[in-house]
Amino acid sequence: MTLGFTIESHDRGTDARCGVLSTERGSFRTPAFMPVGTAATVKGVWPGQLREMGYGCILGNTYHLYLRPGHERVRSLGGLHRFMAWDRLILTDSGGFQVFSLSALRKVSDGAVSFRSHVDGSAHVLTPELAVEVQEALGADLRMALDECVAYPAERGVVEDAVRRTTLWARRSLAARRLPEGGMLGIVQGGMFADLRRRSVEEICSLPFDGFAIGGVSVGEGKELQRETVDRTASLLPPSKPRYLMGVGTPGDLLFAVSRGVDLFDCVLPTRNARNGMMFTSAGQVTVKQSRYKDDPLPPDERCDCPTCRSFSRAYLRHLFSRGEMLASMAMTVHNLFFYARLMERAREAISRGNFMDFMKESLGSGIQ
Amino acid sequence: MTLGFTIESHDRGTDARCGVLSTERGSFRTPAFMPVGTAATVKGVWPGQLREMGYGCILGNTYHLYLRPGHERVRSLGGLHRFMAWDRLILTDSGGFQVFSLSALRKVSDGAVSFRSHVDGSAHVLTPELAVEVQEALGADLRMALDECVAYPAERGVVEDAVRRTTLWARRSLAARRLPEGGMLGIVQGGMFADLRRRSVEEICSLPFDGFAIGGVSVGEGKELQRETVDRTASLLPPSKPRYLMGVGTPGDLLFAVSRGVDLFDCVLPTRNARNGMMFTSAGQVTVKQSRYKDDPLPPDERCDCPTCRSFSRAYLRHLFSRGEMLASMAMTVHNLFFYARLMERAREAISRGNFMDFMKESLGSGIQ
Repeated sequence: MTLGFTIESHDRGTDARCGVLSTERGSFRTPAFMPVGTAATVKGVWPGQLREMGYGCILGNTYHLYLRPGHERVRSLGGLHRFMAWDRLILTDSGGFQVFSLSALRKVSDGAVSFRSHVDGSAHVLTPELAVEVQEALGADLRMALDECVAYPAERGVVEDAVRRTTLWARRSLAARRLPEGGMLGIVQGGMFADLRRRSVEEICSLPFDGFAIGGVSVGEGKELQRETVDRTASLLPPSKPRYLMGVGTPGDLLFAVSRGVDLFDCVLPTRNARNGMMFTSAGQVTVKQSRYKDDPLPPDERCDCPTCRSFSRAYLRHLFSRGEMLASMAMTVHNLFFYARLMERAREAISRGNFMDFMKESLGSGIQ
Repeated sequence: MTLGFTIESHDRGTDARCGVLSTERGSFRTPAFMPVGTAATVKGVWPGQLREMGYGCILGNTYHLYLRPGHERVRSLGGLHRFMAWDRLILTDSGGFQVFSLSALRKVSDGAVSFRSHVDGSAHVLTPELAVEVQEALGADLRMALDECVAYPAERGVVEDAVRRTTLWARRSLAARRLPEGGMLGIVQGGMFADLRRRSVEEICSLPFDGFAIGGVSVGEGKELQRETVDRTASLLPPSKPRYLMGVGTPGDLLFAVSRGVDLFDCVLPTRNARNGMMFTSAGQVTVKQSRYKDDPLPPDERCDCPTCRSFSRAYLRHLFSRGEMLASMAMTVHNLFFYARLMERAREAISRGNFMDFMKESLGSGIQ
């Protein structure tokens, strides 16, 4: 394994830290947000736009790519990077989360999870070994071990079982590795039970992963319980390895987790909300569905320098959105991703200066949610 | 009126000519294709991408913008250019074509055409004066006189009546002008009747328009009859003024009309076909719906240098298209518009060299349709 992670500075008042994550393909600075490119495309943006915004790593979804167009097809076309024309890093999830949230007729055993495709009902069996094989075929730089993700609320027995199985699968995932490049991250489960989280951390972090992810959050538990769990779990993870909070969240969620020492994030919020007409701004959310924006000549965010804010008014975006014009989703996606990229950039600067808490308070005070 | 049109060179073997069309806002070279931006956006592309492709003028649809968001709203937001962040030229149609093709319960008299909106059924009355007022409120650089467009086939009496009314409305359109900038073009009708086309040309071209359009084609008449009509009509138009063929067409249609001395074109084909998965290439059409492209690693057009062909394979575009991903439409739209822009650029070069016919034969021989 050749994944490198160097911590360059620690904040003074919080657990936040700045680092550089590097592989053979390249490196990027942390804390970092990674846009989600489910089906080998971050919806509505050109790869070049992501590069211009400064993103160093994006996500691909193993479950989706395994089903369509198929990992062998992607491999024979030169791998996921070439397929989608993205030359920086790609992290793929293990497929577990989608199997548990999207597929039908799911049946889990210690050996495997069998399910039917949400697309055509075809039967599939996902094992930890297959999850690794698919991710290696795609050529992902950062790969995730298959885990069992449990929705909230769940009985203790169910979560306990998922913790045990996640550890079992984590060992098998490591044993299944063939690709020397990049790295593999393990995932901690344990639901909202403090002792099960601790048990999962102990088991997963004893294994030779290149980094560790907090899984099993953003599954219906609500913001308070989520933050409590993130807070508790992050502090237990080994400080020298990158920490990744999966599927979270709002700008405020990200700042909170950064303050607890989390380095990596992914979430569909900025891209999905953009397609629903919602923009994150320095003064709070702007939802162009609202008729108050009909004649509003202001840019979405007066303090933003993104291509959307430099060109378009709220009234124009509202017009495009209500007409169902593609440019509505395109422009609002660019704005939101630009906003997330800048937020992380400014977070890194604040950590380097040692006053991340001030930056967080100021950001939240100005209306960021 | 301050619309300028300078012819810079004539082809040797055909009626093709190169020119420069200029207004206060700027100028562009002809023959030129103008992408269609129906609802104040060329579907799926950023204004900056259109600039990079070299487009100097795009189209806006008066009918659509009048209904939504409303011309007074656009005016109060600074005009159409500012609204859609496009600083080069805009040509607006008169709304007539859409009233005759989209709206319901249409009733035409010499005074006006009353109709119901295709969106919400609301009742509207369009007069030549209102068509001018709307276009001036939008701030279009090139504006069209309201005409009556007749579908094919049509009885002689109906076409004759439309010719008479189109001339009547042309006079009223000229009288209704208030905006000194830019210019107004008249539209020739006459269906597929040679003598009625001649009559319409004589009537419309006797009026002080800044240019003349061939309307009433691409209305169901088929390619042969269309070319016959274009051929016949173009040769009657005054050579010193720009000639505009409305709503046409394929790359082959454009080259044919250029050879007959037409200067301006607009058509939804490159943009609409892109959204349906069809690309124009130097070797003919590529339709990514076809399963033959599933594993095809080649770019859409091996001889094309557009951002899509530089980055993406047919297999990738097919994948995006079958997944319904926005980037499919975005990338194929960019390719098709790039293709049209380059075709016109190369046409202008061939005319300047005096061998347009060779260029046309070579293009058609290589598979362009």
